[in-house]
Amino acid sequence: MVQTVKTHEIDKVEGGNILSPLGFQSGGVHSGLRYRKKDFGLLMSDTPASVAAVYTQSHFQAPPLKVTQEGIEKSGKIQGVVINSAVANACTGKEGLENAYKMREMIAKRFGLPEEYIAVASTGVIGEQLPMEKIFYGCETVELSREGAHDFQKSILTTDTCEKSACYQTKIDGKTVTIGGAAKGSGMIHPNMATMLGFITTDATIETEALQTALSQSIEKSFNQITVDGETSTNDMVLTMANGSVEHDPLTENHPDWEKFQVALQLVCEDLAKQVARDGEGATKLIEVNVKGASTNEEARIIAKKVVGSSLVKTAMYGLDANWGRIVGAIGHSDATVDPNGCDIYIEDQLVFSDGTPCPFSEEQATEDMSNAEVKIDIRLHEGEGKGTAWGCDLTYDYVKINASYRT
Amino acid sequence: MVQTVKTHEIDKVEGGNILSPLGFQSGGVHSGLRYRKKDFGLLMSDTPASVAAVYTQSHFQAPPLKVTQEGIEKSGKIQGVVINSAVANACTGKEGLENAYKMREMIAKRFGLPEEYIAVASTGVIGEQLPMEKIFYGCETVELSREGAHDFQKSILTTDTCEKSACYQTKIDGKTVTIGGAAKGSGMIHPNMATMLGFITTDATIETEALQTALSQSIEKSFNQITVDGETSTNDMVLTMANGSVEHDPLTENHPDWEKFQVALQLVCEDLAKQVARDGEGATKLIEVNVKGASTNEEARIIAKKVVGSSLVKTAMYGLDANWGRIVGAIGHSDATVDPNGCDIYIEDQLVFSDGTPCPFSEEQATEDMSNAEVKIDIRLHEGEGKGTAWGCDLTYDYVKINASYRT
Repeated sequence: MVQTVKTHEIDKVEGGNILSPLGFQSGGVHSGLRYRKKDFGLLMSDTPASVAAVYTQSHFQAPPLKVTQEGIEKSGKIQGVVINSAVANACTGKEGLENAYKMREMIAKRFGLPEEYIAVASTGVIGEQLPMEKIFYGCETVELSREGAHDFQKSILTTDTCEKSACYQTKIDGKTVTIGGAAKGSGMIHPNMATMLGFITTDATIETEALQTALSQSIEKSFNQITVDGETSTNDMVLTMANGSVEHDPLTENHPDWEKFQVALQLVCEDLAKQVARDGEGATKLIEVNVKGASTNEEARIIAKKVVGSSLVKTAMYGLDANWGRIVGAIGHSDATVDPNGCDIYIEDQLVFSDGTPCPFSEEQATEDMSNAEVKIDIRLHEGEGKGTAWGCDLTYDYVKINASYRT
Repeated sequence: MVQTVKTHEIDKVEGGNILSPLGFQSGGVHSGLRYRKKDFGLLMSDTPASVAAVYTQSHFQAPPLKVTQEGIEKSGKIQGVVINSAVANACTGKEGLENAYKMREMIAKRFGLPEEYIAVASTGVIGEQLPMEKIFYGCETVELSREGAHDFQKSILTTDTCEKSACYQTKIDGKTVTIGGAAKGSGMIHPNMATMLGFITTDATIETEALQTALSQSIEKSFNQITVDGETSTNDMVLTMANGSVEHDPLTENHPDWEKFQVALQLVCEDLAKQVARDGEGATKLIEVNVKGASTNEEARIIAKKVVGSSLVKTAMYGLDANWGRIVGAIGHSDATVDPNGCDIYIEDQLVFSDGTPCPFSEEQATEDMSNAEVKIDIRLHEGEGKGTAWGCDLTYDYVKINASYRT
């Protein structure tokens, strides 16, 4: 977090969600793509909204992402996003692309909006075409309301074990603006990898370009710093809409409250990212790795992510094993500058490794600490001022079970 | 493999090992570091040998590697290598470095050799000092013989389930030269990560510099292309000795038989590397990924390694699931040029994915194919002429079990 922003300037809104900001509605229905659960969602701003988005780095970007990207580039604004779960519409070729367009067209027509104003997202099994009659049914029956946040949040889940939402508020020009978010992730749908989707709404007044800057900065320190199993999906996307329902001087990097907004957005992203990591496949706990004293912030983030992504660290955490040797191993082969003799490692409050050699510590205390739902690993280097954090989860029998079971 | 070398010019020697080349002896004893098993080994050339080595990229390089590297830089030759298992002598600070020197000194004195002529290696638990009385006992009691290959091979193992050896022959200037190798790897010693060690002997005549070139080229396509869990150890090392017992024109890159030697050395490395991957922790099978048609050989190797290292591909292989979606996912987020519409994927002989979309295939046949001890995945791109291979193993409940159990 940027240090110049005082924490009391940003408030977490307990129980807040994507509909906490003014001027948004959403809904979710069961269209028949899944057996019983909601599988079709819609999120809409009352007015056209500035938009920012980040997409998967995968070479195999799914058709809905292409359609969304194209629409945003064309109009620079959107008003809503339509999403289905169960079928990812990825690796589906020309037919898949046409189906994503059709899905967009249906919603646009129903609400009397230009097609480019509707973003499209899908998550689920890859390599299968969307059953369009079910998609049409979803497009026709989904209803918007100011109370539809949970319906929307449920409709985007795959094998997630819980809904994920977050909300923070701050003041811009003395006026309260709200940022809300919903996410899904870390559930696996055969034969897909874990898709991560995030949707963020805000009633702040900000142009598309500035919103993109704020989102990109936030993503770098949040969604890009979580890992469940090192995989990237064809369908990953985080999309933000700002509808300007709260009037204030438009936010730009020169606005005196810019940093407050950027940090509040980052907190929403971080909150959602941690919820995704905690709900990783088969996970029993959230692991947070903090690195301080690296050459640069970027190197700190690289090291943190390497440690939290190490299969050996992950299995040790599952086994309640204060196995600093594996943390050393992961730091050791990261692509960052590390002086082995200037490296301290803490597991929770205990120093377990210092200046290149192990330290005596209480294994009993460590086991107790690691039994909690959150475990912190702190790494202190002496290379510079760089710091960074990454989040992940433990590697368990259930991860293997979930992912080794034959597709049915 | 380099195509200009005809396969009949290089022969695999079944049952061959590090003592198949002329002029080498070895031995292994139980020094008390492990409970019952052999834990202390010595490999010696009859005469000073040219030497080449590659070391772990970890920032936390263990003391024995430093001592070995320093000795080689000083003398350009070595005559033997001494190794202990059970304790890695890593993260042991100044005392650890002194102990590695002492271990070298003991062997050098006993055999009347300069200290720099002895390389040192250790593998096992990290962060513990070597119990030097046991090391001294090993140094005094280990005996060399022409029949000592198995004793040496056993003494370097940790939790490996089997010895690993390989041997190939080729003709240089019409004379038969032999290359033999031993390796250990993928066993886990608490709280260490899987250390990989390889020792290669040859009776060929070749200077140190040329040997290093040949080894580096071979490593790139063999040991560097295997992955069990993406981890790198503090103690990884591959060491090659060439004692010139077979007289011929010294091998250099200009020698007409250079390529035969280089490929034979690569085959030894590849053979050992595959044995290590197959014996990966908890593994039930070897997975080989071949990539053709990439922009460059390097990109092909990057893609192959990404696929074989993917937790989702590895669990799918364990679950006998012909899950091409996960292969697509892994290719998709590799740092290489990939046109998703020009990508074909084969699981054994069946085409499962072509030109960006899935193909119909027999799931039954795929399940049968994946039940074998070796599974091949072939990936064809249309970016260029680059090709590369990587090897790994499946991810199983036993991997989690082995690595999550508390240190005892």
